[in-house]
Amino acid sequence: MKAGILLVGDELTGGRVLDINSSYIAERLDLSGWGVSAIITVGDDGEAVKGGLEYLLDRSEGVIVAGGLGPTADDITTAAVAAAFNLSLHMDDEVLRKLKGRFETYHIPWTENNSKQAVFPAGAIVLENRAGTAAGFCIERGGKLVAVIPGVPGEARRMAAEEVLPCFEKFFGKADEKKMRKQVRLFGLSESKIDETIALMGPFPDVSVGFYARFPEIHLLLTARGKNESEAAARLEEAVKKIHEKLGRYIYGYDDETIEGIVASLLIERGYTLAVAESCTGGLITDRLTNIPGSSGFLERGAVVYSNLSKVELLGVPPEIIKAHGAVSRETAELMARGVREMAKTDIGLATTGIAGPSGGSEEKPVGTVYFALSDSSKTYCRKSHFRWDRRRVKEISSQFALEMLRRYLIEGRVFDE
Amino acid sequence: MKAGILLVGDELTGGRVLDINSSYIAERLDLSGWGVSAIITVGDDGEAVKGGLEYLLDRSEGVIVAGGLGPTADDITTAAVAAAFNLSLHMDDEVLRKLKGRFETYHIPWTENNSKQAVFPAGAIVLENRAGTAAGFCIERGGKLVAVIPGVPGEARRMAAEEVLPCFEKFFGKADEKKMRKQVRLFGLSESKIDETIALMGPFPDVSVGFYARFPEIHLLLTARGKNESEAAARLEEAVKKIHEKLGRYIYGYDDETIEGIVASLLIERGYTLAVAESCTGGLITDRLTNIPGSSGFLERGAVVYSNLSKVELLGVPPEIIKAHGAVSRETAELMARGVREMAKTDIGLATTGIAGPSGGSEEKPVGTVYFALSDSSKTYCRKSHFRWDRRRVKEISSQFALEMLRRYLIEGRVFDE
Repeated sequence: MKAGILLVGDELTGGRVLDINSSYIAERLDLSGWGVSAIITVGDDGEAVKGGLEYLLDRSEGVIVAGGLGPTADDITTAAVAAAFNLSLHMDDEVLRKLKGRFETYHIPWTENNSKQAVFPAGAIVLENRAGTAAGFCIERGGKLVAVIPGVPGEARRMAAEEVLPCFEKFFGKADEKKMRKQVRLFGLSESKIDETIALMGPFPDVSVGFYARFPEIHLLLTARGKNESEAAARLEEAVKKIHEKLGRYIYGYDDETIEGIVASLLIERGYTLAVAESCTGGLITDRLTNIPGSSGFLERGAVVYSNLSKVELLGVPPEIIKAHGAVSRETAELMARGVREMAKTDIGLATTGIAGPSGGSEEKPVGTVYFALSDSSKTYCRKSHFRWDRRRVKEISSQFALEMLRRYLIEGRVFDE
Repeated sequence: MKAGILLVGDELTGGRVLDINSSYIAERLDLSGWGVSAIITVGDDGEAVKGGLEYLLDRSEGVIVAGGLGPTADDITTAAVAAAFNLSLHMDDEVLRKLKGRFETYHIPWTENNSKQAVFPAGAIVLENRAGTAAGFCIERGGKLVAVIPGVPGEARRMAAEEVLPCFEKFFGKADEKKMRKQVRLFGLSESKIDETIALMGPFPDVSVGFYARFPEIHLLLTARGKNESEAAARLEEAVKKIHEKLGRYIYGYDDETIEGIVASLLIERGYTLAVAESCTGGLITDRLTNIPGSSGFLERGAVVYSNLSKVELLGVPPEIIKAHGAVSRETAELMARGVREMAKTDIGLATTGIAGPSGGSEEKPVGTVYFALSDSSKTYCRKSHFRWDRRRVKEISSQFALEMLRRYLIEGRVFDE
């Protein structure tokens, strides 16, 4: 079974807006066992909608049309779809009543052009829009289905998943194949090293593995096929287990998990408190950690110590150490981590100091040189790295490296293989 | 003149990768005076490429095909395009030689499948790829042009702009209309208020105004048309000038400018130093500022003061003030800004304290309550706001609000209309 996606909007063909609907809808179709025949984007033009629709119907059992359902004159999708099938338009009083109620609830003045959003082709089944005002609809022609939904991303995604796919499934029956997908998130190994390791494990039965570089991480996308969801799920689990056996140390999480979320959970679970001293990362580490609700339970403070004076005052690093070894040095990094821990009276101190660039490098310490340190009551760990990226990317990979150091420490009780 | 875009790749129809090429290419076409007939995405399948190509050639003078030019078996675009036009394939020795040289330069071992990237349909003009290995090509059929380029975003964008458009222009002549575009970036006024203000100014001759909400900012996209670039540029400038007259206070920048970049320039220009004390923003303000090269010239320190103890120790806020008024209060915010300035001995102190949520709110101070303070040697300004967003968005809009407060102070010598 094939499905096509038709996107409607001048803002898309004019390149003024990035389409983020079709990849989501395509993935949902793919996971439900539908092949995607094609994705077509056309402007707000009746003839173009008709042309795209015919092209897709020639190659698909179902078509999802997104966009052009608003109240203004350039919203032509409903009329264009009706014209393509020679269907008359009629007002749905029930939808109109609900629409007016919605405007009242949100204290938006009703203007007559909004009635347009209650007009549908004859014979259409109305698809409810739980996230916005414009309802969608689905029509059947010659054994094929055309579903029309709004183009607003939140609404389009939700309606595709909650209204259109069930409607397709009801009409065509469930696909004879289901897919399940899991993302495996790694940090600290190169893509080629991961590729090599996975290749040596041989292909997994009915599970494909895709590689996606999401700086500074590598994500593996595992897609398992099966006669039904439980068969696909079992195959997926088996593959994940095998990959975890080989690469587990570098896997910080799955699907939507973030390294800051994982670190926060571990800190809360173990009841540890944390203080952070950041030079080159400039606050990015605490920014990431404080995105997690409940971070005030473990984060005592962060110090963004851009000047030497602040390293002395906020962390107690002796000025003579900075003078002797430099602000970017193993000695300073270690004293930063220890100092922030002692001043904040926390269990753990984490520190970064480096040269993010573009200037400030020297022959001995080139741009991209960063020292990381982690201190607890018994020991201070330190490691030097060198990153060949631009300023923002040096900050990003450095914050990731520091969080990974903390994750390893929380899981293994030590930081590196030393 | 119309152009169509054909994207080729299973990763796109499977929804595993977001297409960021077509909107860029569409915008470049649009600005060069081309209309975009349609954008079609198909999988790595010869028949699908052929179908999409025919559809687009029916509706366009030029077609840009992107993707499927790699060395592996699933890269079928060249063969599919040749088959669609009944053209034979041949090896280009000059391209092959360059390709091998490139592998040598980067110390990548040559494998024979790479020769595929030197194969082109008979009669094709080779388009150079300055950003990667796979060259593109352009062929003419019946007075129409088909250009084929790789799908890798950096390569596709660069080749569309630098190779394909000049090739189209050489063949079809320059378009009789040119467009120029400028983005105007605003913060601090609602979209409806901006819309109203612009509507009252009447339409601008040959300049269209688009509204784009880019949380927490509003961007206006002005597109001016003209017989040539200088006419379009003059119209654009006139419209920008008029909009600036009415909304200038809320315009922090244009095109790719960021508020942190503008603030950094102003601080450097005026020779002021800055210290930041962040509670609810968790380091996001200093993270944004330290993305700007040269920020070490003005940023003395940042203090992420999540605990009350840290507010006392790092900022000198008296514990009895926190006890009496709470950590989220006007009194605490003002003393945070003053304290960080005095301890860091900087010209300006900037502070945020608030409840980012999802928990921690009360009836008196609900989630989303944030105090902002700015202190200089003569005065401390403070303002309270309430944001109805999730945790991350409260952090984002709060960091933006604080930076805007600083921008106003640097430009107007005061913070608010008080």
